[in-house]
Amino acid sequence: MSTTMFAASSQGSALTPIQVDLPDLKHDEVEIAVETCGICHSDLSMIDNEWGMSAYPLVAGHEVVGKISAVGSHVKHLTVGQRVGLGWYAGSCNQCEQCLTGNQNRCPQAQPTIVGRHGGFATKVRCQSLWAIPLPASIDPTKAGPLFCGGITVFNPILINSILPIHKVGVVGIGGLGHMALGLLQAWGCEVTAFSTSPSKEAEAKQMGAHFFKSTRDEQHLASITGYFDMILVTVNVALPWDLYINMLKPGGKLHIVGAAPEVKATIFPLIAAERSIGGSPVGSPQNISTMLDFCGRKNISPTTEHFKLSEINKAFDHLKSGKARYRIVLENDLA
Amino acid sequence: MSTTMFAASSQGSALTPIQVDLPDLKHDEVEIAVETCGICHSDLSMIDNEWGMSAYPLVAGHEVVGKISAVGSHVKHLTVGQRVGLGWYAGSCNQCEQCLTGNQNRCPQAQPTIVGRHGGFATKVRCQSLWAIPLPASIDPTKAGPLFCGGITVFNPILINSILPIHKVGVVGIGGLGHMALGLLQAWGCEVTAFSTSPSKEAEAKQMGAHFFKSTRDEQHLASITGYFDMILVTVNVALPWDLYINMLKPGGKLHIVGAAPEVKATIFPLIAAERSIGGSPVGSPQNISTMLDFCGRKNISPTTEHFKLSEINKAFDHLKSGKARYRIVLENDLA
Repeated sequence: MSTTMFAASSQGSALTPIQVDLPDLKHDEVEIAVETCGICHSDLSMIDNEWGMSAYPLVAGHEVVGKISAVGSHVKHLTVGQRVGLGWYAGSCNQCEQCLTGNQNRCPQAQPTIVGRHGGFATKVRCQSLWAIPLPASIDPTKAGPLFCGGITVFNPILINSILPIHKVGVVGIGGLGHMALGLLQAWGCEVTAFSTSPSKEAEAKQMGAHFFKSTRDEQHLASITGYFDMILVTVNVALPWDLYINMLKPGGKLHIVGAAPEVKATIFPLIAAERSIGGSPVGSPQNISTMLDFCGRKNISPTTEHFKLSEINKAFDHLKSGKARYRIVLENDLA
Repeated sequence: MSTTMFAASSQGSALTPIQVDLPDLKHDEVEIAVETCGICHSDLSMIDNEWGMSAYPLVAGHEVVGKISAVGSHVKHLTVGQRVGLGWYAGSCNQCEQCLTGNQNRCPQAQPTIVGRHGGFATKVRCQSLWAIPLPASIDPTKAGPLFCGGITVFNPILINSILPIHKVGVVGIGGLGHMALGLLQAWGCEVTAFSTSPSKEAEAKQMGAHFFKSTRDEQHLASITGYFDMILVTVNVALPWDLYINMLKPGGKLHIVGAAPEVKATIFPLIAAERSIGGSPVGSPQNISTMLDFCGRKNISPTTEHFKLSEINKAFDHLKSGKARYRIVLENDLA
């Protein structure tokens, strides 16, 4: 039985349906019948070959929720019909130091779902069974897709940096990633400050979890804030006036970058004098994704989503490109 | 009774003896009769006003060992005649969050020993009693001075980054700071790699604690090392090919900078993909200095020093400026 996929035939092209006959399922893989798939900005980056690693026809989509339709012969912990999610990574070596210490997201051999394989803009998608994460019943499946990439990308820094409810955290950029960070950090118990170029987002940012809102255009005001934040989470993919943000950190504070800006440049003295640091991270491990899902279920956290039919995928991408998505687009499979 | 001090009368000038009558000792201060004082490169930076915060006449010197000659009225834990050391900081507010959590070296009000006060190139020097750290009997006092600035500067990153004996650590720059890092890290149980521009230092670096030696000029070889080090400690104060060093870090690895280079510039993707980070730190808290002294005594670690008489201080500075100091210069007070 062939699978329908929405493919870019070349760099930046519109997505057209293709029919693919999938080979035999590998012994450690599962196949997921896609119910929904979120659109992440990195799907667009891959379609546009921004990172120079795209191969065409390219089938993007890596915020999948669906039900398992087949399991490989060695897979014993998942069953057909079980609802799971799949994010940026679809496989890891499971042999290296990183994998063996529970950091599969740092595995040098980790296989992105949409690099060298086809992703979730399709009726079916496959992955190594470890990366198909069971969805708890406490989570609304129709809105859960974006948690598997955007959500875990902003949840992982909370774990990595040992953030506690006594901490003050800033979130730079209130978009697909940042809006989820606000809700997660508020539920975590932190004092949360949203930083955005768009003053029009203030009311919504506060609804979503921010206690305070700062316009990033008012650099004079930002410069007056020094030594305040335990962590500033950067979700935008543009260059920032880095020193300005570093100086807002408390001694020991962390500037944590998850937006793929090209480079970071910082005066060293403010790092040394106050033991500040600059770090980054990619999504999260399977266990941390499970932990996040449990937390989101318990705290009733879900992304703010807009929904399109999978068959309207090009319309959905136009909406993404317009910069007007509020805040994460989810495609619903109407082809299955 | 007046105190003899060696002062720079203006930016970059030779040091000349001056006589100063000190005011009454403050209630929380102690006075130290200087026995020895190390020379740190930052003494030269201050004499040359490299950081724009020097006031003349300037008396540098902040790696002091000596015996307490007087205690303020509120000081109960130190006694006249007790041998102590004094490093980069001579005071902190002791009221702020940083001070109250044992991070007095991150206190925004911390007072450097040679900024706005006179330092240890003198027969006597004063500090807040908290910053006069008792020297254990297990430490050779004639060589201990450099531990109080250079030593703690490279010991503190071991504590901050939770370095364990299973870790692989690189040390960039085998000079006043770096040579102490080698001994400390070897005693800590780590695998230690020295990075230096000077291949002539290989044999000595290995004697001092390095298991491996890499020439920093061989960038082609360095580029072949990826994902290896848990921490790379940068002790040089020049710009490095930062990405080269970041790529040598394991996933989760730390590039830790203690050398005052102007800025750091890094491609963000290698930080994000492998959860690496860039940090820095200044000296250490009084407790961490005590902890270091205990460790050095137990492990028989001392800096490699060259000794000059205090009265020959200008000759000692000429030696420092020649780049030939191996590895830390200590002045012995011959005026007391």
